Amino acid sequence: MNREELVKQIFAKKSFLCVGLDVDLKKIPEPLLKEEDPIFAFNKMVIHATAPYCVAYKPNLAFYECYGIKGMMAFEHTIEYLKTSYPTHFIIADAKRGDIGNTSTMYARTFFEEYNVDALTVAPYMGEDSVKPFLVYEDKWVILLALTSNKGSHDFQLTEDKDGTRLFEKVLSKSQEWGNDQNMMYVVGATQGKMFEDIRKVAPNHFLLVPGVGAQGGSLQEVCTYGMIKDCGLLVNSSRGILYPCDKTSCDLHTYATQVAQKAQELQQEMETELKKL
Amino acid sequence: MNREELVKQIFAKKSFLCVGLDVDLKKIPEPLLKEEDPIFAFNKMVIHATAPYCVAYKPNLAFYECYGIKGMMAFEHTIEYLKTSYPTHFIIADAKRGDIGNTSTMYARTFFEEYNVDALTVAPYMGEDSVKPFLVYEDKWVILLALTSNKGSHDFQLTEDKDGTRLFEKVLSKSQEWGNDQNMMYVVGATQGKMFEDIRKVAPNHFLLVPGVGAQGGSLQEVCTYGMIKDCGLLVNSSRGILYPCDKTSCDLHTYATQVAQKAQELQQEMETELKKL
Repeated sequence: MNREELVKQIFAKKSFLCVGLDVDLKKIPEPLLKEEDPIFAFNKMVIHATAPYCVAYKPNLAFYECYGIKGMMAFEHTIEYLKTSYPTHFIIADAKRGDIGNTSTMYARTFFEEYNVDALTVAPYMGEDSVKPFLVYEDKWVILLALTSNKGSHDFQLTEDKDGTRLFEKVLSKSQEWGNDQNMMYVVGATQGKMFEDIRKVAPNHFLLVPGVGAQGGSLQEVCTYGMIKDCGLLVNSSRGILYPCDKTSCDLHTYATQVAQKAQELQQEMETELKKL
Repeated sequence: MNREELVKQIFAKKSFLCVGLDVDLKKIPEPLLKEEDPIFAFNKMVIHATAPYCVAYKPNLAFYECYGIKGMMAFEHTIEYLKTSYPTHFIIADAKRGDIGNTSTMYARTFFEEYNVDALTVAPYMGEDSVKPFLVYEDKWVILLALTSNKGSHDFQLTEDKDGTRLFEKVLSKSQEWGNDQNMMYVVGATQGKMFEDIRKVAPNHFLLVPGVGAQGGSLQEVCTYGMIKDCGLLVNSSRGILYPCDKTSCDLHTYATQVAQKAQELQQEMETELKKL
């Protein structure tokens, strides 16, 4: 999916919500555990409930790989289902890959040819030749880690060089020699608040994928105040806050799905308010 | 496997060779393509041929993931085969993972509980909480990217902070607050030559996993001159140089396997010479 189509979806749905499909079998409603593929069954329920309120889905590979072959089959089924039944939703594989050139080429084939997702998160540490193989695909996106939402982001990402440029700023500027705002986005954690102002100085036109709203404590309003641009330029992710709205034992499947939808709708409505300010 | 056992193997075999199991179906001998699981069949041949000359195996996940479920089954079979038939060989999953704490915990379970490998390569960009979940397992190892073998390593890893400390040096020193030389190694590319001297100033006792000898052009002798320590402290990896010793069409399976063994033995003999200098 290209930028124009993504932006069109955002303004049609009045939402820039991305739903993180990070399934934890310990937390999903018990009736689903009896299904042949419980992860996929849960995802289908979540996708059906949230599709009207979001523009993107982001399965994190860690949550599939940990169940071995079965988990990877659930991942494949989920991607197939999305592509068939919800073709206007943007699909991000959150895998944080990155390796030497010939190996990144293999990862690129996997995600952009085999799974055929729209975007892949990539780690920048290994530099140009670890990122470029992902950029040769038309209408596919690299989402490069810049300033992440976690506490450990302070360990290296904020390190200043001799000129006072912080590492995440160097990642933002250097990577613009490899890709552009039509094939590259950046991960910036919602927990980084006012730092979005600094991000926008270096990457004024790029889309940002923003995790960390909800469970991790980031503020949607703050993200929008400092990070939103003319065509929105934001995809804000929520995973745990939407997927697990209530205790799995306290409600039946129908009620659970309704609450999942409600959580997504609440975020969509906040986003609609923010989009009106444009 | 703990450090003591690994060192014992190195001196028993007079080798610190790690064989990278990066299978490319386009390059393997044609008779193997008829097997039910050609990747696993190729790996078994390579392992059988090289086991006397190496102490470790390192499958890179990119080369398995790219074949989807079949690829991941080949990966599982390879690990099982190694653990059953070659239990004294050290197994490294080269996956370069790393994510926020709860997600790294999932990756740690996958590789250290499900696959039960000895070590996993991890990317440092996201800092402490992305690395620590891998360090809670007894006799398991994080192999953290420090100074990689590729050209892109110059983009960020060599960036100097205000005090002149380069990013890879900061990764080396900071990460020693999280782990120690019994559960953490570092990736340092063989192509970095004299930089091993600088590495040893910050990490004098850690094992280093060294890719880049052979196809990537690094010198084994230089690595040893500047990087070897009392108990060796090196695992030098070769993948393409061993796996593809001749054109797949020009020799039969037996000859191919013999040449794989020869390539591994040549490296082992060079290593024996280096170990004698200790």
